[in-house]
Amino acid sequence: MTIDGFYGIIPAGGVGSRLWPLSRADAPKFLHDLTGSGRTLLQSTFQRLAPLAGEQRIMVVTGRAHRSAVEAQLPALTDANIVLEAEPRESTVAVLLAAAILERREPGVIVGSFAADHVIGDERGFRRAVTDAVAAARTGKIATIGITPTEPAIGFGYIQAGEPAGVPDAPRVTEVVRFVEKPSAADARTYVESGDFLWNAGMFIARADVLLAELARTEPELRAHIDDLAAAWDDQATRGPAVDRLWPQLKKIAIDYAVAEPAAERGGMVVVPGDFDWDDVGDFSAVAKLHNGALGADRLAILSGNATVLADGASGIVVSTTDRVISMVGVRDIVVVDTGDALLVTTTEHAQRVKQVVDAIRRSGNATVL
Amino acid sequence: MTIDGFYGIIPAGGVGSRLWPLSRADAPKFLHDLTGSGRTLLQSTFQRLAPLAGEQRIMVVTGRAHRSAVEAQLPALTDANIVLEAEPRESTVAVLLAAAILERREPGVIVGSFAADHVIGDERGFRRAVTDAVAAARTGKIATIGITPTEPAIGFGYIQAGEPAGVPDAPRVTEVVRFVEKPSAADARTYVESGDFLWNAGMFIARADVLLAELARTEPELRAHIDDLAAAWDDQATRGPAVDRLWPQLKKIAIDYAVAEPAAERGGMVVVPGDFDWDDVGDFSAVAKLHNGALGADRLAILSGNATVLADGASGIVVSTTDRVISMVGVRDIVVVDTGDALLVTTTEHAQRVKQVVDAIRRSGNATVL
Repeated sequence: MTIDGFYGIIPAGGVGSRLWPLSRADAPKFLHDLTGSGRTLLQSTFQRLAPLAGEQRIMVVTGRAHRSAVEAQLPALTDANIVLEAEPRESTVAVLLAAAILERREPGVIVGSFAADHVIGDERGFRRAVTDAVAAARTGKIATIGITPTEPAIGFGYIQAGEPAGVPDAPRVTEVVRFVEKPSAADARTYVESGDFLWNAGMFIARADVLLAELARTEPELRAHIDDLAAAWDDQATRGPAVDRLWPQLKKIAIDYAVAEPAAERGGMVVVPGDFDWDDVGDFSAVAKLHNGALGADRLAILSGNATVLADGASGIVVSTTDRVISMVGVRDIVVVDTGDALLVTTTEHAQRVKQVVDAIRRSGNATVL
Repeated sequence: MTIDGFYGIIPAGGVGSRLWPLSRADAPKFLHDLTGSGRTLLQSTFQRLAPLAGEQRIMVVTGRAHRSAVEAQLPALTDANIVLEAEPRESTVAVLLAAAILERREPGVIVGSFAADHVIGDERGFRRAVTDAVAAARTGKIATIGITPTEPAIGFGYIQAGEPAGVPDAPRVTEVVRFVEKPSAADARTYVESGDFLWNAGMFIARADVLLAELARTEPELRAHIDDLAAAWDDQATRGPAVDRLWPQLKKIAIDYAVAEPAAERGGMVVVPGDFDWDDVGDFSAVAKLHNGALGADRLAILSGNATVLADGASGIVVSTTDRVISMVGVRDIVVVDTGDALLVTTTEHAQRVKQVVDAIRRSGNATVL
């Protein structure tokens, strides 16, 4: 029941510093179970793609430091399906290097790239959207899945949908008019009211060669480096020297700028509306909401392995990786994150400010806890 | 400059469960520095009495488990000046046993008993009050020092002052009309407005033989046991057997019931108004207030040895005995108490409820953190 010729790519990078001190350099967001499902975000992403691509056809791109954690979490992942980054180089390198390696192994392959640290509620809806996106990719387009907005969020980029793209068997697919960066509150309201705008969730589905051709137009030097790396990749004797020589030269650029936006301008992008529950779990307020529900303002979410949490008149979320006794008394909309060497106390309202905290800690000389 | 024939008694008992998880069975409130002065409450109490009694004339009554901590904190304390309780037996045993031991060593001695875990701001005012109280004690009265109320608190007992007691050189000393238990809010307001009521701070100053005579009237059996213990106390050969035989039989009763209230009814109690800053530091809200001041609603008090505290838009208090990095973001009137095995998060408004938390923890089977 998998999709013919389809390969999943999971770029697993990014610390998720708004989720500090749970998420940190040596244990980033995607390695954590933030939903209480018993699976980490990476494991959920992998399992979501498995019915579409097959467990043997999912490639994970991650930092060298996370290799053992990723392999431990994904026993089905083979050596051929893990790409280790020598240093973080942003999303273009992560996705296009994987695409180039796969294209050499299997010319004409269709790849779909999905972040390792998002949460999707309705897996059937997700599979329908990916199926439509692959159909569009077969026509030579670059497809993205845009999430139907549930509120005028200002934390996401938007995609403006246009006319139907005429993809056989996938009538929901439309042209992309343009991508919009994170908007003002007023613009966000206008977008959502228009019904033409979708959230950009960073999901890209295309033939690998189409992505690479787009990169050749916008960033020819980066494209050449990626080609050289891909050519050397599958031979242990050549991979190391190629990485040592080329990695430092790889340009850091987001795939939105290097591929998606230029492709949209040329009319090469299409979008599938994703009407499934989706969350990028950007901060602890989002984690609390995932657990307590939008209406669960009076509940306390507890993510705790070995800690004992005693709550009395408390709401919000408490996360612990310790085995301490934690008492929460009369605190509303609270966020408590308790780890061995760091403690965060804030509120769901201020959860976004954790990023500034992380910056302050770096300046204070306590970077070992980051 | 010390007072002739005066001996200080410091009953150092009571866990202070509203200050959990800082204060706990093996490290009760009086062993902690809650004021940021660099001295624990016990050390401050001792140093406050030293100019009045002399360092060699202060007796500490505490549990066997706290012997080494007390001796470490009070290097001037000799073996003769520490009374170890086999089991906690309430304030009558603590104060009257010390008084009985001292009376045998020094007939006619005047003792003054002061809790180990209160904070007094104005030491000069305290010394004036004790001096007046000793003058009253010399006339055969039992004297107490009543704190001039600053608000209609419902957490303290009150003392109603009556006519001047006619103590030579101490015209402020008055008769005690009656003791009142913790009142309703309405009664407390009436008391404070009347100007006749003082807070009962549990300070008692009297000739040891007068205290013991009062106990003989109200609790003759307890008085007899205390006499027997005192007679056996100063000989190592007899103390142990006497403690083993008598301690289990000692009645648990507060000195207020066994001595002070009955004495007041018979016209034997007098009170000295204590117009100095006094606080029993009953909960973390009081600790915060000690640090931030009554008007410091927007400040964050930090009691932390090795922890690094980073605060942004936070007020209230954070107490830590760990070496963690603690970030407090946008939390108002918060109380965070961070220890190795337990964490408390509440607000200054709900700080009193910590006692219920402790009860809940005991029921939950996590008593090791208490």
